[in-house]
This record gives sequence, structure tokens and C-alpha cells, in this order.
Amino acid sequence: MKKINIGIVGLGTVGTGVAKILKKNRAALLQQTGAVLELKTVADLDIKTDRGVTFKKGVLTRDADRLLNDPEIDIVVELVGGIEPARTFVLKALNNGKHVVTANKALLAEHGLEIYRTAAGNSVDVAFEASVAGGIPIIRAMRESFVSDRVLGFSGILNGTSNYILSRMTDSGGEFRAILKDAQKQGYAEADPTFDVEGIDAAHKLAVLAGLAFGRHVTMKQIYTEGISKITPLDIEFARELGYRIKLLAVCRGSEQEIEARVHPALIPETHLLSGVKEAFNAVFVRTRDVGPTMFYGKGAGMMPTGSAVTADIAALARDIVQGAVNRVPPPLYAVKKLPPIKVKPVRDTVIRYYLRLTAADMPGVLSKISGILGRHKISISSVIQKGRRARGGAVPIFMLTHEAREADLQKALREIDRLSMMKQKTMVIRIEDGAL
Amino acid sequence: MKKINIGIVGLGTVGTGVAKILKKNRAALLQQTGAVLELKTVADLDIKTDRGVTFKKGVLTRDADRLLNDPEIDIVVELVGGIEPARTFVLKALNNGKHVVTANKALLAEHGLEIYRTAAGNSVDVAFEASVAGGIPIIRAMRESFVSDRVLGFSGILNGTSNYILSRMTDSGGEFRAILKDAQKQGYAEADPTFDVEGIDAAHKLAVLAGLAFGRHVTMKQIYTEGISKITPLDIEFARELGYRIKLLAVCRGSEQEIEARVHPALIPETHLLSGVKEAFNAVFVRTRDVGPTMFYGKGAGMMPTGSAVTADIAALARDIVQGAVNRVPPPLYAVKKLPPIKVKPVRDTVIRYYLRLTAADMPGVLSKISGILGRHKISISSVIQKGRRARGGAVPIFMLTHEAREADLQKALREIDRLSMMKQKTMVIRIEDGAL
Repeated sequence: MKKINIGIVGLGTVGTGVAKILKKNRAALLQQTGAVLELKTVADLDIKTDRGVTFKKGVLTRDADRLLNDPEIDIVVELVGGIEPARTFVLKALNNGKHVVTANKALLAEHGLEIYRTAAGNSVDVAFEASVAGGIPIIRAMRESFVSDRVLGFSGILNGTSNYILSRMTDSGGEFRAILKDAQKQGYAEADPTFDVEGIDAAHKLAVLAGLAFGRHVTMKQIYTEGISKITPLDIEFARELGYRIKLLAVCRGSEQEIEARVHPALIPETHLLSGVKEAFNAVFVRTRDVGPTMFYGKGAGMMPTGSAVTADIAALARDIVQGAVNRVPPPLYAVKKLPPIKVKPVRDTVIRYYLRLTAADMPGVLSKISGILGRHKISISSVIQKGRRARGGAVPIFMLTHEAREADLQKALREIDRLSMMKQKTMVIRIEDGAL
Repeated sequence: MKKINIGIVGLGTVGTGVAKILKKNRAALLQQTGAVLELKTVADLDIKTDRGVTFKKGVLTRDADRLLNDPEIDIVVELVGGIEPARTFVLKALNNGKHVVTANKALLAEHGLEIYRTAAGNSVDVAFEASVAGGIPIIRAMRESFVSDRVLGFSGILNGTSNYILSRMTDSGGEFRAILKDAQKQGYAEADPTFDVEGIDAAHKLAVLAGLAFGRHVTMKQIYTEGISKITPLDIEFARELGYRIKLLAVCRGSEQEIEARVHPALIPETHLLSGVKEAFNAVFVRTRDVGPTMFYGKGAGMMPTGSAVTADIAALARDIVQGAVNRVPPPLYAVKKLPPIKVKPVRDTVIRYYLRLTAADMPGVLSKISGILGRHKISISSVIQKGRRARGGAVPIFMLTHEAREADLQKALREIDRLSMMKQKTMVIRIEDGAL
């Protein structure tokens, strides 16, 4: 009976999940892969905390090198997160001829090219299903199911924390700050929530998916990123009234020649499937040339969902090892062909519909003034709602939806509008995505 | 450069799609699989009709045996459909040492055991992504992504024709018969729509998925099957008013010990993601032990969506052939271990909520009589609506939703109720699935 030795670096939530899954499914995994999957070594700086899983003597170590340099280890699972020392660990494992499974989107977004090439150069594989959307098998779909197809675009709810906060704001009401605090207490948000609520985590995932979808490298700098911290209950409420939900969306569409790549809050029609994605759930809506629209929905994080995705990668590699297969599914095209990063359309050239919340003094002529400026910049309004006096100092919020307009034109118009003495607050802008991709 | 020869039996819509895809993606598929995928032979009784794709001389044949017996053919794609001669073709291909890709759910539901075993006995593979939900990669998710997980249940909208008809009835109104006729004109329904609208096609797909989800064989006889032809606009309208949509649902849940397996119209809460699956789209909602709830959505049929799924299977087999891998993903457990069919709970023992539409004479005491009988059979009512005189002969429809009740009890109560002289029509019963699985 073949035995495959596995080493885990990083025994956090997901690492613990993987250890539990490997233990309780030993027989099923043997039946499915043809090998005993043995968790030989687990490295973490903290090997004292009881994580609810018992390890055989000698499995736990504080020394990552012990498993990275162990010639008996076949697969290294990197669950440290962040760039360093994760990058060093992954490269060392690959250079030592070990396959790597990682859930590290930041690392792949920043250093994917180096990692994929190092893997190919050493005839080993990097598997990364758990790096995007946790338990949802979107990476496998992109690499294996859409193999003959061409992705035209995808839009995803890729950050559970942001979706949890926005869902709470939508369903129970409340201010961003208060709900964030509550989310932190309940473990839905980190102590430092910046990566989650400012869209950086979603941008990392967009980069990973875009690399597969378009076969080209997208750098973090190329992705326009905007978070949800400025969204107010007024925005949520007005969007609802008009039949929209506000979601933090990662949008990417185009072709090998040029793509749009952006992460920002967006109004989505309530009839679109993505609008029904609530709480901390994730979903990726994909449009391909041949299959058309598809959607993949599920839990984007958590011990068992992400642990399950990691284990699926381990099992796939184990099947390859048993069969003597190497690089069965090739790395993303740009890593094979040494292609430069893809061209990304500057966000100022994006043509899209907009939601505007203007805060103006409650006086005659305001609307005509504002719509005049918008008109001069080729921005036409599809609906306007002005509601009684709500804000401080006699200012009233005016809500507008525009027809499609170029972002640069809109920004110019808004700079002009926000300079008017009658304007009491900077205008809030949220993009509208109708989901058509 | 390795060349892999492919033969297609059955040049209908999907076969034509596969031929087109193989042709236009030759280079991409070479990059992805490491082999040139050559469509060597295509067999169909009709080789005269122009299908918009040109074949090299000698590719087309009326003689299926020419490719089934050709030692140069590596992969046979069976797209004949139905049981015979498809079964004979598939078994011959497998016995001749060829891998088989099939989209044939009827064949797998009826003869899956024989086919999977024949494949394993000949050290070849049977791939069948396209057999369930067309372009949605649900088979790959079940076999590879949930490999360490345990499926607790799934509920799917697996028949596009039925979903198209019900969506039209819901969104634009109209009687089943009229919309079916229109659907037939538009190519959404077959001339003989029985398999689609009576739930048989969905039951075939349920059987295929259940075999993967629970590792055990489910026979067609074990699946309770009920179609949508009795659904009336009144049912659709009342369901809507109470916040439900009516869908033809394939429901399967349980464990290796016992499952429920049934196909029938069901009321689903409008807030559930499955309610948003409209037109001819398919979706499968799955709940697993570790990943929790997931949903997979997309086109369940059509030349390019299903053609793409078939091609993904061809590419996966090509990767295995290039790598020298065989049975990399093992066949369903029951085919390996010769397990008997799984135990299926009789539908009379199902405990579920019900929608009832009773048609009674408009006279005093009706409601008390009906609710008295229901109460005596341990069926309690959660809501009742009685609406003015609508039906013929002074009869009025009474709509009821029940709490959870045993099907056998409900049937007994309804037999008693429908025998009452005040009842003007057989009572309509639709199950309610809250989607919780």
C-alpha cells in the first residue's frame, strides 16, 4: 500500500481543519486515491495550544525546516498566510521537489509567477483551490471544467466579512462601524479588518482567478480597489427602494487583449442571483463563451469548508503521485509562456451606470444646477429621488441613478458639483453592476 | 507530439457542439493536455444533413462499429442517447479498451453498474460530466472536490424544459398546456415531452448524482417521480402570494443507511437561491458535512454548454492518457465494492410540509369539516386562505399550508376529504421544500 507523507506549515484554523479531515477520512481517502495519506509533520510557532485534535508523538514541531527538508515528505501544505515567511517556505518546498498546496491568495497574487515557475521547473505542482472562495470549487472549474471554453468575465462576492457586514446593514439596519465591531466580537472580522473591508483580500482573489480566466498575469497595482467603509444606511435603504442590493464585488471581464479588473461596492439588481448571497457566504458568477452564465456559491472561509478544499487538493495530488503523473494540469498559461502582465483598462475609462447620493442645501434651483453640470459632462440621469429633510443643517440627500457614463466624465462633473457652495458633503458614488457581464 | 484519436457516436446537437469545440480549440487543448485531440471518426445514421461543421474526408460514417472496433481510437464519445443501441455501443467500446465519455443519464441510471464495472474491468474510464446539468460541473465537484467530504443531501432543478414552463407560468401567466405547446415550437420541449415534464429525466439525473453522493446504487423504481402537468395557474399564483415559487425539484438526502429520493413539484421560499433559477437554467443545491451548503448554477442543455462539458471530460481523459494514468478517479463506490442498491425511504413515510388546494362547494361548515378530518389524521394547518367564487359550479378553492406531516397520514386524510359530497374536485397536493436539506 502506497503511503504519501504530508507536512502542514501553519496550524491555525484551516490547518486544524485539514488535520481533522485527514484523520477521520483515512479509509475513504485511501479508497479514493489509492494511498494512505499520512500527516507526518506539522510545524507552527505555537505547538502548545490545544486545538481539539491530537497528534502522534513527534508530529508537531516549531521548526518548519524539519518538514521542508524532509526527503520523506511528498506534499507540503502552506497555511501560514501573508507573504513572508510563507513565500520562503513555499519556494523551499518546491525546490526540494515537494508538491505544494496553499490557501494563500496574497502570496499567489503577489508572487504567483515566481511560484508557478518554480513548481514547473522542479516538475512538481502547486494546488490552490482554497485560495479563492474557500469551499467553493471555482479553481477546479476554471482549470478543468472550462478547459476548452473561454471566460468572458466573472463577478464575485469574494470576501465573507464584507458580505456579512453589508447583509447585516441591509437586513437589520445599522451603521458600518457598529456592525463591524459586532462582527469582530463574533469572529466574522479580524482585529485589523483593513484587508477585508477595504477590498484588498477580494483583489488578491480577483488576481488569482483572472490569471486562470485570461491566462495572463494581473498585478495588484492594476486592480482598482475600493472598500465598503463609506457605505451608509441611507445608501443601503435607497438602493433597496429601487430594487438593488449593495455588495462588495470583484469584477473582471474582457479578453486576452484587455480586461477590466476592479473591486468596489456595487448596486446589483435584487433579481440577480448574486443578490441572494447573504451572510458570510461567497459566490462567483462566471460567463464563458460556450457554457454561458454559471454561478458557484458556498462558504468562503472557515475551518471545515476551507479545510475540505485543501484536502481535495491533497487528494488530487495523491492521485497523481499514485499514477506517476506530473503537472497533469499545467500551471496558468502566463507562467508557462513567460507572458507580461495583461493590459488593464484604467478605471477612468470604465463605462458603467452610477448611483449618486448628493447632499445639498434645501433651496430652490439645486437640482437644475446639478443636472446641468452632469449634462455638460455627458452624464444623463435615469432616475432622481429627493426625500424630505434628513441630514444635518437643513441639507437634503438627493439620490440619482445615471445611464452609462465614462468614469472620467463623472469624476470631472462631481469635482465641479462638490465645489458648489450649496453642496454640504462630498457626493457618494457607487457603481451599478447589472450582472450581465 | 502525442495524438489522441476521438470517435463520436451520435451527431446530434451535442455531438455537433463537441466537433466544433475540438476544431476551434485544437491549439488550446494541446497546450492544456499535451496532446493533439484528433476527431478521427463520427458515426451517425444521418450523415447527409449539414450541421454547420465540416469534417475531413472519411471522418463521417454510418457504421458505428467502424470506430468502436478501430484500434487507433482512444476515446469514444457516446451521444446517441436512450438505452439501445447506446448501451451496446458503450459496452463494446469499453471491452475494446477505449475510454468512454457519455452524456447519457438514462443509460447511466438504468445500467450504470454494468457500465462502471465493465470500464474498471478493462482498465478504462467512463466520464459523464455532461449527463447531469449540462454545462454545470457538478459531477467533477462530487467526484473530486467533495472527495473527503460527505454529502448530506442535494436538491436540484435538473430539467430545463420543466423549469422553462414553470418560469413562464410564474412570470407571464398561462396554462401548462399552452405554454408547453409554445415551448415545443421554440425548441425548449421535445415533440414527446413526457420524459421532461413528468420528471423522468430529472429522476435519471438524480440517480446518477445519488450514486456519487452516497456511493450506492439507486434504481429508477426506488425514485418517487411526479411531474408538473397538473400544476395550474391558481397554484402558481397562490404560492407566489405566500412567498413561494413552484419548481420541479429532485430531492435526495440521507446517509449510506437510508435516503429519500424523489422528484416532484415543490414550493420553495422565494428567498432561497433555487427560486431565482429561471428559464431553462439548472441548479444543484448541495449540503455536505464539512463544506456546508453550496450551489452550482448554469445551463443544463444546449449545443455549446453540454458540448463544453463533454470536451472537458475528453480533455481530462487526454491528460490521463498523456500521463499514463488509469482510473485516476475511481468509479462510484458501489461499482467497485459490489454493493446492493441503497435503502430508500418509501415516500409514504416522508415527513414534510404540504400545500393543499381544495375545491369545495361554497357552503357553511366546509372548512370545519375539512380541518376536522385533517386534525384526526394528525395534520395541523399553518395557514388557510379562502378566496371568493372562482371555479365552476359555485365551488371555491381553499388553499392550505400544513405543518410537517407524514405523507401516509395526509393521503388517508385526503381520501376521506375527497369522498365528501361537498368536494367538487380532487385535492391538489404539492410538497413544500424549505431548502434546508
